[in-house]
Amino acid sequence: FTAVQEKDSRVCVGLDPRIDLLPPALLARYSTSAEAVVTFCREICAAVADEVPVVKVQAAYFETLGRLAFSSLWAVVAEAQRLGLLVIVDAKRADIGPTAEAYAQAFFGGEVIADAVTVNPYLGNDGVMPFVDAAEQTGGGVFVLVKTSNPSSGDLQDLRLEGGYHRVYQHVGEEVRLMGAHLRGESGYSAVGAVVGATYPEQLAELRDDLPGVPFLVPGYGAQGAGPEEVAAAFDDDGLGAVVNASRSIIFAYRETGEPEQYAQAAAQAAREMKEAINEA
Amino acid sequence: FTAVQEKDSRVCVGLDPRIDLLPPALLARYSTSAEAVVTFCREICAAVADEVPVVKVQAAYFETLGRLAFSSLWAVVAEAQRLGLLVIVDAKRADIGPTAEAYAQAFFGGEVIADAVTVNPYLGNDGVMPFVDAAEQTGGGVFVLVKTSNPSSGDLQDLRLEGGYHRVYQHVGEEVRLMGAHLRGESGYSAVGAVVGATYPEQLAELRDDLPGVPFLVPGYGAQGAGPEEVAAAFDDDGLGAVVNASRSIIFAYRETGEPEQYAQAAAQAAREMKEAINEA
Repeated sequence: FTAVQEKDSRVCVGLDPRIDLLPPALLARYSTSAEAVVTFCREICAAVADEVPVVKVQAAYFETLGRLAFSSLWAVVAEAQRLGLLVIVDAKRADIGPTAEAYAQAFFGGEVIADAVTVNPYLGNDGVMPFVDAAEQTGGGVFVLVKTSNPSSGDLQDLRLEGGYHRVYQHVGEEVRLMGAHLRGESGYSAVGAVVGATYPEQLAELRDDLPGVPFLVPGYGAQGAGPEEVAAAFDDDGLGAVVNASRSIIFAYRETGEPEQYAQAAAQAAREMKEAINEA
Repeated sequence: FTAVQEKDSRVCVGLDPRIDLLPPALLARYSTSAEAVVTFCREICAAVADEVPVVKVQAAYFETLGRLAFSSLWAVVAEAQRLGLLVIVDAKRADIGPTAEAYAQAFFGGEVIADAVTVNPYLGNDGVMPFVDAAEQTGGGVFVLVKTSNPSSGDLQDLRLEGGYHRVYQHVGEEVRLMGAHLRGESGYSAVGAVVGATYPEQLAELRDDLPGVPFLVPGYGAQGAGPEEVAAAFDDDGLGAVVNASRSIIFAYRETGEPEQYAQAAAQAAREMKEAINEA
C-alpha cells in the first residue's frame, strides 16, 4: 500500500487482452496474435504507470494464445514490473496440497515472479496455504476469492450455513482473515487479501467491517456496472485497504473515443478519470 | 465410455511431471527441463496406451516450466491423442462469465483441443456453463469439482447448509447433475461429470447413488492412499460410470523398481496392475 499512497491511486488496471477487441491495425502489424497482445499490454502499462500502482494480468486471455500463452504472460509481467508497476496474476488457481505447491512455485518461484496471485478457496486450507507460504517467502501477496463480482456468484457463495447466521462467503472471509493474521506488514494490512466484487456493495461494506486488516481486490467496476459510490465502502476510514480493478473500461477505452491508434492514451485518460472519481468518493 | 469398454480399463493415468522426480539421466540429456518433461510424458503415454483409455494432464506441473508451460502442455496433449488416448486437462479453472469463456476457448477452441477439462464451482453457474457449452460443441466433457481428495477438502465442501440435510458438496453435486441432464450421450452418461475423491469412500458411495448418469473422475488412488476397495463404490452396477486416476504411483513407479532407465515399462506395469485390481474389485 506504499505504492497506493505514493501515486495516490486506488486503481488496478486489468489486462484482459481479448483478441477480438484489440485495435485492428495493431493485429495486422504482427504475424501472431501473441505478439499483438504483448505489444498492446506493454503500451497500456507504459501509459498508465503514472496513474496506477498495480495491474492485474488475467491468465485466461493469455491461455487463449495456445502454445505462446505463458511466454506472452511472463513477458508482460516482466515489462510491467520494469515500469514500476506491481503485478497481480489473476489465475484463480487452487488444487490439492502438492499440486498447489507446484502452482505456487509457478507464480512465485520462477524467473519472473508475480507480486500477488488470486486463489480459489473451494479446496480448503491445504489448497490455499502453499500460495500463502510462497508469497511470504517472496514478500508477495495472495487474494482469495470471497464474494465474486459475477451475476451467479451467489449460487454457492450466498448459501446459508447451518445455524442461520453465516453464509459461505462470510465463512471464507473469516478463514482468509485468520490465515493472514500473522502476516501483517508495517502498513497494518495482511499479505492475504480477499476478492470482493463491487457489484455487491452491501456485502462489500459488511465484509470491510468484518475483516479488518485484510486488503481487498475489488473487481466489477466499469464494464461490469459498479461506479465510485459502490466501491467507497471497500476502504477503511483512512482511505486505504483496497484497490479497485477495472479492465475493459480502461484498456478498451479507445472504442469509446473512436481513435484506435490512440488506444494507450485513451487508457491513460480512463485510468486517470477513474482514479479521481474514486479518490473523490 | 466406449474407450473404457474397448480397453476394459477404468484407469486414468495422471501426468504430474514433477521435475525433481524425473529420472536424473533423462534430465541430464536435455538443456531445458521442459524438453525432459515432454519426453517423459510422451514415453509414459506410449507405454500405457494399451492399458488405459485416458490420461489426465496436470496443468500446474507444466506451469512450473515458466515461459515454456503451454508449449509443453499442448505438445503432450497432442502426442497423447495421436496415441489414441483421451486427454483430461486438469486445470481446475473458473472465472466470471466472459473470462470463463476465454478459458473454455483456450481448452476447447485452439489448435489442439482437450477431451475434457476440470472446473471449479466456486463462482457458480456462469463460471461453469461456458465450459459446458464449449464441450458440447466439440463433443468433449467437463468434470466439476464436487468432493476433492485432499485432507482439507471438508473445510468448505463439508459445511452443512441451513435446513440441516445438505452439505456444500451435495448441493454442488446436484447442480452438476442438473447442468448435464440434457447432455446424456448414447452411453447414458452426461458430458458434465464430477470429481469425487477416492479418499472419502462414504461420500463417494453416497454421491454415486445421488447422481445417476453423472460420470465420476476419481482421484486419490495410490500415493494419496486409496485402493481398489475404496473406489469400487464409484461404479454403477454395470461397472461403468467412473475412471479412477492415479498419478505418482504410476508415472514414478520406477522409483520402487530401482530401474530409472525403465521408467516407461515400470509405469505400464503399474497401470496394468491397477487396471486388474480395479476390475477385480
